[in-house]
Amino acid sequence: MAAETSSLFLLFIVITVISASSLPSLASWPSDFSRQPPRFLGKFSHRTRIQQQYRYEIRFFSQRLDHFSFSEVPRFPQRYLINTEHWAGPGRLGPIFLYCGNEGDIEWFAANTGFVWDVAPRFNAMVLFPEHRYYGESMPFGSRGEAYKNASTLSYLTTEQALADFAVLITDLKRNLSAEACPVVLFGGSYGGMLAAWMRLKYPHIAIGALASSAPILQFEDIIPPETFYNIVSNAFRRESTSCFNTIKESWSLLKSEGLKAGGLDQLAKTFHLCGELKSTGDLTNWLDAAYSYLAMVNYPYPSEFLMPLPGHPIREVCRMIDDSPDGSSTLERIFNGVSIYYNYSGDASCFELDDDPHGMSGWDWQACTEMVMPMASDLDNSMYPAYDFNYSSYQEECWKDFQVIPRPRWITTEFGGHDIKNKLKLFGSNIIFSNGLLDPWSGGSVLKNISQTIVALVTEEGAHHIDLRAATPEDPDWLMEQRATEIKLIEGWLNDYYGERKATFEV
Amino acid sequence: MAAETSSLFLLFIVITVISASSLPSLASWPSDFSRQPPRFLGKFSHRTRIQQQYRYEIRFFSQRLDHFSFSEVPRFPQRYLINTEHWAGPGRLGPIFLYCGNEGDIEWFAANTGFVWDVAPRFNAMVLFPEHRYYGESMPFGSRGEAYKNASTLSYLTTEQALADFAVLITDLKRNLSAEACPVVLFGGSYGGMLAAWMRLKYPHIAIGALASSAPILQFEDIIPPETFYNIVSNAFRRESTSCFNTIKESWSLLKSEGLKAGGLDQLAKTFHLCGELKSTGDLTNWLDAAYSYLAMVNYPYPSEFLMPLPGHPIREVCRMIDDSPDGSSTLERIFNGVSIYYNYSGDASCFELDDDPHGMSGWDWQACTEMVMPMASDLDNSMYPAYDFNYSSYQEECWKDFQVIPRPRWITTEFGGHDIKNKLKLFGSNIIFSNGLLDPWSGGSVLKNISQTIVALVTEEGAHHIDLRAATPEDPDWLMEQRATEIKLIEGWLNDYYGERKATFEV
Repeated sequence: MAAETSSLFLLFIVITVISASSLPSLASWPSDFSRQPPRFLGKFSHRTRIQQQYRYEIRFFSQRLDHFSFSEVPRFPQRYLINTEHWAGPGRLGPIFLYCGNEGDIEWFAANTGFVWDVAPRFNAMVLFPEHRYYGESMPFGSRGEAYKNASTLSYLTTEQALADFAVLITDLKRNLSAEACPVVLFGGSYGGMLAAWMRLKYPHIAIGALASSAPILQFEDIIPPETFYNIVSNAFRRESTSCFNTIKESWSLLKSEGLKAGGLDQLAKTFHLCGELKSTGDLTNWLDAAYSYLAMVNYPYPSEFLMPLPGHPIREVCRMIDDSPDGSSTLERIFNGVSIYYNYSGDASCFELDDDPHGMSGWDWQACTEMVMPMASDLDNSMYPAYDFNYSSYQEECWKDFQVIPRPRWITTEFGGHDIKNKLKLFGSNIIFSNGLLDPWSGGSVLKNISQTIVALVTEEGAHHIDLRAATPEDPDWLMEQRATEIKLIEGWLNDYYGERKATFEV
Repeated sequence: MAAETSSLFLLFIVITVISASSLPSLASWPSDFSRQPPRFLGKFSHRTRIQQQYRYEIRFFSQRLDHFSFSEVPRFPQRYLINTEHWAGPGRLGPIFLYCGNEGDIEWFAANTGFVWDVAPRFNAMVLFPEHRYYGESMPFGSRGEAYKNASTLSYLTTEQALADFAVLITDLKRNLSAEACPVVLFGGSYGGMLAAWMRLKYPHIAIGALASSAPILQFEDIIPPETFYNIVSNAFRRESTSCFNTIKESWSLLKSEGLKAGGLDQLAKTFHLCGELKSTGDLTNWLDAAYSYLAMVNYPYPSEFLMPLPGHPIREVCRMIDDSPDGSSTLERIFNGVSIYYNYSGDASCFELDDDPHGMSGWDWQACTEMVMPMASDLDNSMYPAYDFNYSSYQEECWKDFQVIPRPRWITTEFGGHDIKNKLKLFGSNIIFSNGLLDPWSGGSVLKNISQTIVALVTEEGAHHIDLRAATPEDPDWLMEQRATEIKLIEGWLNDYYGERKATFEV
């Protein structure tokens, strides 16, 4: 019986190997392709023009650069936005709503996190948006140029330092306002949501709860399958149209073979209306790859201008363009028509600049090369992408080339946990909302099931990247209004529990 | 009415000022006195000879010096003691008992923490004693001399770095043993107890619970009155004998006036059998001050050799010597006879060396000058000491003189909390035992009341500094055996909850 099992198993392997090698290669990456890991929003968060939509004062706080050692490094000015118009004040224990600034200009996040501004007045809450160190105007060493000079100056750009910044800032601010007893509620989206959740776990004495929207705190090591992200992106296209999905799936090998032809790169540059020369097929592939990922993230049901000006249900529109291109359009022409929705919805662009500096020193790239190592892969069977394995050695090599730094891929789970999260947090921790829209490719790395009565998952079928944090609009679908109502109710509950405990203590 | 109130208030001030100045000075410190803040055990933990009493293997782990930034600093070897003899192993989810090494040689703590060794076999537990960085043999930069060279080399000696050391070490060790699912229980006494409690709060995914014995996590800022420590020391003497208490109380001004006389220092040196010259009365005062504090800490009901060889109930013996000195003995002779119990119980010493290097670079002094700022004062009315205010400016000056470092007195409460601890942790956190003996002067800075069902305080009237962590002895009083039995039961409960949750998860 045992022998039979093993021969069957061997047979299975043989068949698998044969079928894998004998299958025609449905799709493959260009040979020079070095895939850019998907980013959150860092790439764009400093590009769109920021319009101040809400009222706040801009202040700076002199912050330690290194909270965890006593080495002699200069302090830096941390920028924060503050609004106390609606605040009930210390006497009435008015709450403080703190958005955990993430990888970009804090004014950009303030403009795109309408939910906090919408709900603060009904809670008589102060609103605070502290900026993340090394982003926006919160630059150590005097300037962005100095701060980003090398691995040594960048070395304090870490998540733990950023959380400590928030802790020190809010503690100092509360003391100055005699508001020590005022409860703090945390908000955050994407990496900011990770910060909010981790802040609640690490600094429970500082904040009574956290709304962590689209926070992929499990996107590390081996906690979730590395294919998760690209499978969700692929499904977002497949659900709109199978032929659209298939066109994209076919396009990769066409791009590759086209690029290998004599004059092929020039032809590709023409097909895709590039402004400059195309130096390698990989650059174009990355440009397309990024468009699909971002489209899945901002696949909102109404028009938005979060990363780019886009119509509602943008993937539906992309697929319509791909599927409904004029008869006789080539696959690559269809692809171009599709991504034009993303890169040129306004129709203003006459040609396109690819990301010509993929190794530019962006803060998020540094973070990805140090702590935020999120393994990403794609598999041929379940996605619209060619197979792509996560290869840690080459990841590490790239990081060395870019920053002369060695990543610490296991550190985040050591510091913040992640493995076996349900059991670990069930008897510990409380008052965290993990909200996720299943269309968002980052949702697969977040918490999608309730952990306990007070660590809850709010999941929406049709939601995209932290849509709940956006300002209310007349186009909001019912499920979104319900989701926000639930969040408000949960936050109310945290506050009532807090006031109740305090009252009980004082009465005793 | 308002006018009346303010004149009354003014009158009150005037009376207070008059009575304070007209009262005879009952006791006062020498004018040159700079009081040494009480330490835990650091001063002694490397002095007593270490005898290996338990079986363990000694290993070293290559540890990052800076966990929270990516600056280029060399790794260091962290020493740890390990015993797996009784361990049930990964298959049976054998627990891991981890003692959080504190400010001294880890072998010394292993020898003095018999409780962990006593109970490990009944839990089939592995025993781990990792050493705290910058102590014992866990020296960065190659040697103690290099590590303690200056503020820059010492800058990584912080509590947060030490906790991260434990987290990284245990995570790596578990992975190597395929023991990821084995539950970790933390133990610690004194500063080690603070580490255990904070580790459970900050790394709940790494350890399921903590026994924090004599852990004064509230001895910071303004959380408890700064007189607490010395009042408890004083009470430990008063409860044995009022006349003993009064003799000590009188002695301070006698020391001072004696020291001011011509030839007075020499006379004091003679009275106290000092080996060398007495340079200032303050040195002698500090020597006596330290003896009283340590006596209160190790006021165990049976003979012990924790800091010094001592009889059971050592304060009772000290007071007996003071009270029963031959008729005609002077107050200072009585004091000498009393402290001889502490400094010379074995009777071997023919003369005494004062701490001739009070500014020597000990690790604990560095920690006290950076993060561990515990304000200490004494008041004339409730203690056997002269009045002494905590003066932060001079504290800071001393630290600058000693280490060229500026303390961060508010950092510990920002990082770990402390204010309003009951409310803050009631709805958060679980599985911590705060055990304290009320004779221990550090007990006043610890948690003495249950915070929740799972964050509990075990308080014993007759206990001293982490007596529960010491090995069981035939002389153990009933209350101590009961205390340990309760601890064992609580730990059993944590483990059963953990196994139960896992079982439930796998059955689902």
